[in-house]
Amino acid sequence: MSDAFAPEFPVTEAPSMEWDAWGVAESRRHLSAQVQGLLQQALGVSAEQSPPPTESDTAVRDCTLSAGRLAALADLVGPDHIHTDTSTRLRHAGGKSTPDLLRRRETQLQDAPDAVLLPGSHDEVMAVLRFCAGDAVAVVPFGGGTSVVGGVDPARGRFDSVIALDLRRLNALTDLDPISGVATLQAGVTGPQAEQLLGEHGFSLGHFPQSFQFATIGGFAATRSSGQASAGYGRFDDMIEWLKVATPSGTLELGRAPASAAGPDLRELFIGSEGTLGIITEVGLRVHPVPERTAYQAWSFPDFETGAAALRTVIQSGSAPTVMRLSDEAETGINLALSGDIGGDSPTAGCLAITTFEGTDAHVEARYAEATALLAAAGGNALGEAPAQAWEHGRFDAPYLRDALLSAGAIAETLETATRWSNLANLRSAVTTALTESLAAQGTPPLVMCHISHTYPTGASLYFTVVCAQTADPLSQWATAKRAAGDAIMAAGGTITHHHAVGRDHRPWMETEVGALGARVLRAAKDAIDPSGILNPGKLIP
Amino acid sequence: MSDAFAPEFPVTEAPSMEWDAWGVAESRRHLSAQVQGLLQQALGVSAEQSPPPTESDTAVRDCTLSAGRLAALADLVGPDHIHTDTSTRLRHAGGKSTPDLLRRRETQLQDAPDAVLLPGSHDEVMAVLRFCAGDAVAVVPFGGGTSVVGGVDPARGRFDSVIALDLRRLNALTDLDPISGVATLQAGVTGPQAEQLLGEHGFSLGHFPQSFQFATIGGFAATRSSGQASAGYGRFDDMIEWLKVATPSGTLELGRAPASAAGPDLRELFIGSEGTLGIITEVGLRVHPVPERTAYQAWSFPDFETGAAALRTVIQSGSAPTVMRLSDEAETGINLALSGDIGGDSPTAGCLAITTFEGTDAHVEARYAEATALLAAAGGNALGEAPAQAWEHGRFDAPYLRDALLSAGAIAETLETATRWSNLANLRSAVTTALTESLAAQGTPPLVMCHISHTYPTGASLYFTVVCAQTADPLSQWATAKRAAGDAIMAAGGTITHHHAVGRDHRPWMETEVGALGARVLRAAKDAIDPSGILNPGKLIP
Repeated sequence: MSDAFAPEFPVTEAPSMEWDAWGVAESRRHLSAQVQGLLQQALGVSAEQSPPPTESDTAVRDCTLSAGRLAALADLVGPDHIHTDTSTRLRHAGGKSTPDLLRRRETQLQDAPDAVLLPGSHDEVMAVLRFCAGDAVAVVPFGGGTSVVGGVDPARGRFDSVIALDLRRLNALTDLDPISGVATLQAGVTGPQAEQLLGEHGFSLGHFPQSFQFATIGGFAATRSSGQASAGYGRFDDMIEWLKVATPSGTLELGRAPASAAGPDLRELFIGSEGTLGIITEVGLRVHPVPERTAYQAWSFPDFETGAAALRTVIQSGSAPTVMRLSDEAETGINLALSGDIGGDSPTAGCLAITTFEGTDAHVEARYAEATALLAAAGGNALGEAPAQAWEHGRFDAPYLRDALLSAGAIAETLETATRWSNLANLRSAVTTALTESLAAQGTPPLVMCHISHTYPTGASLYFTVVCAQTADPLSQWATAKRAAGDAIMAAGGTITHHHAVGRDHRPWMETEVGALGARVLRAAKDAIDPSGILNPGKLIP
Repeated sequence: MSDAFAPEFPVTEAPSMEWDAWGVAESRRHLSAQVQGLLQQALGVSAEQSPPPTESDTAVRDCTLSAGRLAALADLVGPDHIHTDTSTRLRHAGGKSTPDLLRRRETQLQDAPDAVLLPGSHDEVMAVLRFCAGDAVAVVPFGGGTSVVGGVDPARGRFDSVIALDLRRLNALTDLDPISGVATLQAGVTGPQAEQLLGEHGFSLGHFPQSFQFATIGGFAATRSSGQASAGYGRFDDMIEWLKVATPSGTLELGRAPASAAGPDLRELFIGSEGTLGIITEVGLRVHPVPERTAYQAWSFPDFETGAAALRTVIQSGSAPTVMRLSDEAETGINLALSGDIGGDSPTAGCLAITTFEGTDAHVEARYAEATALLAAAGGNALGEAPAQAWEHGRFDAPYLRDALLSAGAIAETLETATRWSNLANLRSAVTTALTESLAAQGTPPLVMCHISHTYPTGASLYFTVVCAQTADPLSQWATAKRAAGDAIMAAGGTITHHHAVGRDHRPWMETEVGALGARVLRAAKDAIDPSGILNPGKLIP
């Protein structure tokens, strides 16, 4: 790291998440008695479960690495940066999907990586990959551990051992080009660290996915993350100018210019590769000056279709707000119930939409005027700033609520897709029906909510939240519903994932997504780069 | 083709270009005596050349395909759609770079494909590829034949024979989704045909590269074309939602949604693949309603650096016009001289910038106000509409002018690159110096002009035009200068091509562009898809 970019104060250390729940203990949510009563009444949710095992009485699979191999690995990263204790291994035992969290609550043996390594540089990552390729050890790259698709499961593939490569020590801003608005950040920089490092220079990245507080730059790139401000600042893949990737076959540096016609865009092969083709160690990103101002406006639409058409008009006009999202009737109603606002000023029917506008004063004013005129003309009823500010205030809280729901005996999970505008209603209906029928058939009729959080001129994402009572075997219960939803998504022409990535959980649909020949091309690329197959086996590539 | 999209009138037939010049004969340009005098005085250009051979006295390499193989190929596309006559073969003998045109003027044997096939469907393309893979015949896909990098040269690689696959019969609009703004066009649709087909439904593609009048949808996709309205509508790669690709290993259909996190974006492997990985037969493209209105404003800046900084401010603010470009001092002066406007109202010093704004009335007004305020604040002097309208009127004429310059004894050629804003002045200076020194050392000091025609938040393109006197061996003269320019681009951190693609001419720099491992990945993808190596050998992949 060049001295020029050493932060004035040390970068705030990234917090580790709880081993068996989202986030950190001090932010844990509890359900009010009123909400618990509602869950019982509406969905038959009951909290009469045996309490889950604590960390100290959890059995973890033994480390399979010999002392000699551990010593060799320790030589590569330094003895302080390799861990084989149960606590560290458990905290790298997987991501944070609902099935992940349900598995943590089981009493059976927990799988975990055999060791956790924290390399301090690209060269150390390269050294570890060379060792593992030669010594038949699988490697799972680990950023914030926020995967909800099994992307950081300690899968061994055909190998006896697997290590987690935790990139948290790669946490520097290594270059900032203020003229071009390009910042180079190491892969282990978390969302808040990125904003801190850039903020000291007057810049912002503006990437705010729900995992923002824990997830990392490398993870955002490796999974094609999309933040809540994607209408304004683009998806994470749009922001990437340059990538540095460590692979068993050498180092790649891709992206010589803002745009190029020099053949296929190889960045796009490594963006979204989820650690199966290489480990992203550094990313050059488009950044922007810290906004002078943010304007907020919330809207009510009579129904989802009217709201979706209104959002479409705005994004197709080229006048996008920074944030633009729309909840359906069910989500609008439930959010209201959970926030305790029933009976307040907020609407109790219809669909809530949120818009925010960031930038210079002049830019915010122009965009606000353009978008507001279009939304009003399309049937929107302006609700003022407060609901939009309330949304922003609570926007990273939902995963904490899920833990509380799981503890209360509910299944709570999300899934997402995207399609063209003309297919949006059809896809939403197909997925809602599949989830509802599958769970009702298991005796647990669900509540299915949906929102649009990412819009494009040609289409939009759909994000579903499902809540129902747990059966005696909630893992199998959800697996059945998830399979039905995935099949419905593919049959109705959606993509199997708009921003959660593939990991283990969406892999069964990948061949449908890219076709048999597309899958062959992915395998050919992997064979060329990772001939021994150590990189994140069992993920993504069908 | 579904009947719903049959055009009301038959789509206008795509004109074939002259065998030895750009475009069509009726648009040919001639230099005035005044301009010829200027060329003689300033650059020592002299037209005392022997007249070039006409088509009838040009010797063309014999067809190497046996009657049996030709009959087999005729079976696949129908006997009316295979041509082995000299005239058709000559018109598929290469693209339209200055070296291409200089080679046409030589008396030696002209290389040409052994046959020209015009398939009528994706399935016919597949059948031809299967035959050629089994029968060891190289295949060069051919759209408008406008390549300026040797992309459609009839290179045989390790094969005895090569065919050109002319896609002009694939000229239909096969689907239009007006809600989503997505049109599906076949690969052989030319720029004007696309606007005609879409215009009947009230839509426009808005892709206007200099090759617009002849080049095709498939070619735009296969070469990552960028149009003059890229600030407003994006590069061609940005517009692509969906691709259908014929390969010797099967068909690929890529792009299920406007955005996806389902792994690497395989579209980006085939976009820009220049026929080396497959033949693009159909493309789903983002389109927009025909603009209600276009506003024009031209600007004068005191110097290139001030103008470039002004354009940067506009594009970084998110308030881009539809077209935004800036000519340097030399180009501004020469364009003025050529248009005969010297002494008129136009400025004779400084740098000319052009902006246009398209869309709804409200959108045009808002954008115009925002961009105009920024450009004026950044030192621009508004010149009114006329120079911008004049630029638009003549925007496809430059290649015709080049033919006139070649006939007058000059070398006239262009090359282009892109880089970050912070490196723009350095790159421009490096390339100008390399071209000037290389040609001066050969006794022909050049005039080197430059413009910015494509801007991005993080950087911009640089487009150079070079004019000098021809030596006795103009092909070798230009090859030396081109080598110096390419080396200078790479040394100064630019990309070897921003929108002309790689073809044969930029291939020497591809390994530097993507790295040794990147090149290996490209070769691995090719081996998986095209194991016999018949697809456009000798192009792109190092």
